[in-house]
Amino acid sequence: MTPYAHRLSDLRAALAKQNLAGFIVPRADEHLGEYVPKSAERLAFLTGFTGSAGIAAILPDRAAVFTDGRYVLQLTQQTDAMVWENCHITENPPPAWLAKHARPGARIGYDPLLISEDALARFTEAGLEMCPTAENPLDMIWPERPAAPAAPAVPHPLAYAGRGSVEKREEVATALRTAKQDAAVITDPASLAWLLNIRGGDVAFTPFALGFAIAHAGSRVEVFMDPAKIGAETAAWLGNGVNIAPRADLARALGRLAGKTVRVDRAFSPAWFAATLREAGAAVVDGPDPCTLPKATKNAVEQQGMRNAHQRDAVAMCRFLHFLSRVGPAGTATEMSAAAQLLTYRQEVKDFRGESFPAISGAGENGAIIHYRVSEASNRPIRPNEVYLIDSGAQYLDGTTDITRTIWTGPGPAPTEIRDRVTRVMQGHIAIARLVFPQGVGGAHIDAFARAALWQAGLDYDHGTGHGVGSFLSVHEGPVSISRAARPVAIAPGMVLSNEPGFYLPGQYGVRLENLLLVQPAELAGAAKPFLRFETLTLAPFDRALLDRGLLDAAEIAWMDAYHARVLAEIGPLLDPDARGWLAGACAPL
Amino acid sequence: MTPYAHRLSDLRAALAKQNLAGFIVPRADEHLGEYVPKSAERLAFLTGFTGSAGIAAILPDRAAVFTDGRYVLQLTQQTDAMVWENCHITENPPPAWLAKHARPGARIGYDPLLISEDALARFTEAGLEMCPTAENPLDMIWPERPAAPAAPAVPHPLAYAGRGSVEKREEVATALRTAKQDAAVITDPASLAWLLNIRGGDVAFTPFALGFAIAHAGSRVEVFMDPAKIGAETAAWLGNGVNIAPRADLARALGRLAGKTVRVDRAFSPAWFAATLREAGAAVVDGPDPCTLPKATKNAVEQQGMRNAHQRDAVAMCRFLHFLSRVGPAGTATEMSAAAQLLTYRQEVKDFRGESFPAISGAGENGAIIHYRVSEASNRPIRPNEVYLIDSGAQYLDGTTDITRTIWTGPGPAPTEIRDRVTRVMQGHIAIARLVFPQGVGGAHIDAFARAALWQAGLDYDHGTGHGVGSFLSVHEGPVSISRAARPVAIAPGMVLSNEPGFYLPGQYGVRLENLLLVQPAELAGAAKPFLRFETLTLAPFDRALLDRGLLDAAEIAWMDAYHARVLAEIGPLLDPDARGWLAGACAPL
Repeated sequence: MTPYAHRLSDLRAALAKQNLAGFIVPRADEHLGEYVPKSAERLAFLTGFTGSAGIAAILPDRAAVFTDGRYVLQLTQQTDAMVWENCHITENPPPAWLAKHARPGARIGYDPLLISEDALARFTEAGLEMCPTAENPLDMIWPERPAAPAAPAVPHPLAYAGRGSVEKREEVATALRTAKQDAAVITDPASLAWLLNIRGGDVAFTPFALGFAIAHAGSRVEVFMDPAKIGAETAAWLGNGVNIAPRADLARALGRLAGKTVRVDRAFSPAWFAATLREAGAAVVDGPDPCTLPKATKNAVEQQGMRNAHQRDAVAMCRFLHFLSRVGPAGTATEMSAAAQLLTYRQEVKDFRGESFPAISGAGENGAIIHYRVSEASNRPIRPNEVYLIDSGAQYLDGTTDITRTIWTGPGPAPTEIRDRVTRVMQGHIAIARLVFPQGVGGAHIDAFARAALWQAGLDYDHGTGHGVGSFLSVHEGPVSISRAARPVAIAPGMVLSNEPGFYLPGQYGVRLENLLLVQPAELAGAAKPFLRFETLTLAPFDRALLDRGLLDAAEIAWMDAYHARVLAEIGPLLDPDARGWLAGACAPL
Repeated sequence: MTPYAHRLSDLRAALAKQNLAGFIVPRADEHLGEYVPKSAERLAFLTGFTGSAGIAAILPDRAAVFTDGRYVLQLTQQTDAMVWENCHITENPPPAWLAKHARPGARIGYDPLLISEDALARFTEAGLEMCPTAENPLDMIWPERPAAPAAPAVPHPLAYAGRGSVEKREEVATALRTAKQDAAVITDPASLAWLLNIRGGDVAFTPFALGFAIAHAGSRVEVFMDPAKIGAETAAWLGNGVNIAPRADLARALGRLAGKTVRVDRAFSPAWFAATLREAGAAVVDGPDPCTLPKATKNAVEQQGMRNAHQRDAVAMCRFLHFLSRVGPAGTATEMSAAAQLLTYRQEVKDFRGESFPAISGAGENGAIIHYRVSEASNRPIRPNEVYLIDSGAQYLDGTTDITRTIWTGPGPAPTEIRDRVTRVMQGHIAIARLVFPQGVGGAHIDAFARAALWQAGLDYDHGTGHGVGSFLSVHEGPVSISRAARPVAIAPGMVLSNEPGFYLPGQYGVRLENLLLVQPAELAGAAKPFLRFETLTLAPFDRALLDRGLLDAAEIAWMDAYHARVLAEIGPLLDPDARGWLAGACAPL
């Protein structure tokens, strides 16, 4: 037996002891976040699969791992086919799989800290008897499970945060009072970081401190976080309106809300919270985390911080593109060495605090894998005369960046068909960047502008056009996105969104062109209602070798030329003469 | 006291007898349709208000009528301010008004045949005690209420319907069996017309016969309709699989569904159906009327019928535009005489069966009233050198039309600003018409294309961009529309949608440019998935006097020129030499 077969066998024994016929193991921690600490990598421990989205379902006689299209290949490579069936999560959803294979009435266990009520409902609606476990049976067979991380939580100064925590807490309290609610449960550590103006280092890529909170309508906030993470300076920073208690006190604190009306986010909070509150006799009301919307709408200081961070990040990015212009035609770089070079340039940038996500560095056919992550096994040279895609970002004290450029390595000219594809993606990018739209419009209503030029040729891309971005927080931030599946929340001034249309030809190459945009009032003379526009934050040239000027209309060419002129004017003076000379050529009018 | 004050007083007395403190009177019949028979004009009888959307709410000491922005002015003109408060239905919704003014716990009555469960839920969610009435108290004080209409139901031949009723009934039955449902309640007379291949004449503008049906999973259909409406020919046409019973038998028939699972559309069927079924012991499942989607996706015969109807309708429309080109500069027509002239031309068209809605004929400032309906009181001359908007449509045996053109009457040139506005509306129209998009896209995702050119200038229009259109049925047909508020249903081949962006400058002029579009597979070489495109059905020139060629890009000019060339080629030969000569000028390349 392989170690994974042993683990599955041990888990089944543990389930039997809890009188459970089955169990689900989502790739999630108790904050339901994107990046999880090692202590919560249960899916990887059980199955070997390390993708960032997935779930395992275990029955007595069969077991399966489910993931989405991004990770289907990785899933088959990482899991033992003798033990685990591999399933596409939308084509063969876990609730349907369980309903099909479980005995009628079988008790299926779940850890209520690792799944939202909304996600759980899909299992119960499939007719399954879902049973919460008091202790996760997987943890019982994982003696060497790492301890929870305990990086220090540190103050996030007003010079970056722009608004004091007391004011933010009062805003949240006012929202609760207006909604006639006594408290809200906060389970997203990014919300906690925003509300309290603190940052941390518990997980990779996102600088928050893991913890929970109860925000009361009287503006007091109870925080549940290992007190060892909160030193004297941070304790003083939080002040008297914030009580700190260990994670272990959380259930008792929820119990004290008996008789109160408490807001819990059905979609983004673990089901355990609503269940615990209901059991304690609280009235649970579904509602969005009260921090999500104000966090997404950056204040003036955060906006200026984002601009500053992007300008500094652009220096690293332009140095990298200049570097590529020399090594690309020579074929002397690999996907890994190129990504390492970009990281080196970023490490020289003021206030750099790490990457905002694992860089995607894909040459040729690897660029067509939308969420490619280079490894020693997949690493390959970046060869002359091919397409190279680099999607990367950084965390700075004053802002978070995320940029994708697609490069023709040269020295020969790019083929006509590839230039056609890249130009259509560029047209989609420009259509979003140039858009002016009234307040009230959501991301689902504008996503198609990024695709229309591709659609005309029967082409498309299988991901959303944009996501929200935090301010020295998560690079993927709600509630707004640019996507047909976007939540029905209006785009509002101060939000930062990515604009990243793409095109992928499997086995050959991938294209993605990404800038971050800041939503601004449009200030149009004579407008009868408020209109919005996008300010582009990201400053780095798009590769003209991949563009076909003849496909662009006059307005598109004007946008490109104005953008490149701005890049040269703002970033050129910050580069050494060599790189500046290269940038001048890269930014010349089309 | 005015007659309306008397009626309200009588109604309050009738309410007291039923132990009700309040009552609501929606502008609705028991099919919840757009056009209602005289016997269901309860809101107009009670309040005097004749708009096509509205509701009255009555309490012991106050009463209000609510309507939307289209009818606010008309509401104040038609109702007695001493008796009725006037409210904007979205700014001051009836549930909130009742919750604010009713005594706590007051029993508010409603006729369960005149409101859907979804609409009713908004009242109960506001904390109101909503009580269904067994008999509508308003009907008790309306002794002279007209009898229900009883126009004959006639066969709709296969040459127009394209598919036999037996096949359609089998399709619906299969859908029910797949969903594990025993029956579906059908309350939309358009669904009945489609399912049974019959047409009627009970209401204005839409050629269906009012009635209900129960479609069984075994494919048998029970129809509830005045048997006097069904002559021998129609009875034979319906055949053995269809049972006819009077409307009075409906409750008993629902009672026979005890123990069965029955689909009812929560949003579009009166609440009475689900309530009656539940009381009888049936399991009610929410689900769309099973006819709605297949009815919306026209078959090949219906598609060709739509093309033929539009070609014939275009002859009337082009004759009318030619007529306007002569009388406009002379100022000799009025809004009413022009609409009458257009109707005269249509009456000469083969298979004409009436208008598909009341024509909107608005000159100058009247054109800015989105749902303007000319009356003797509002009628005014169409003057030289102004903007004139005509939105009209017809019912033909083989199809339904709906077209809007906006005309500059001349003889002088149109002002630059007006041409700018019209050209932006035209750009929106062209953007939709030229769109190619993958299957799966809904109307909410493409609506913004029709607005982007207006948005760039801080302009917009306060209505959706398009609605579905029936095949010799309702000119407003679900489930798909082009609108941010569109239901989440994918646009599919065979659907007919209007494309009607606009712009309205209150007190000055209105612009709307409308063609009907037929959804077609796009047949793109090399496409990795199915794509769709729009085929334009409507054939009449857009007024070049209102367009600014300099604002259009090359692709837009090419679309305009190709469209006008097609209009001239298809319609020119059907006109007399005079009109043909005029059309050649109107269709010349820009």
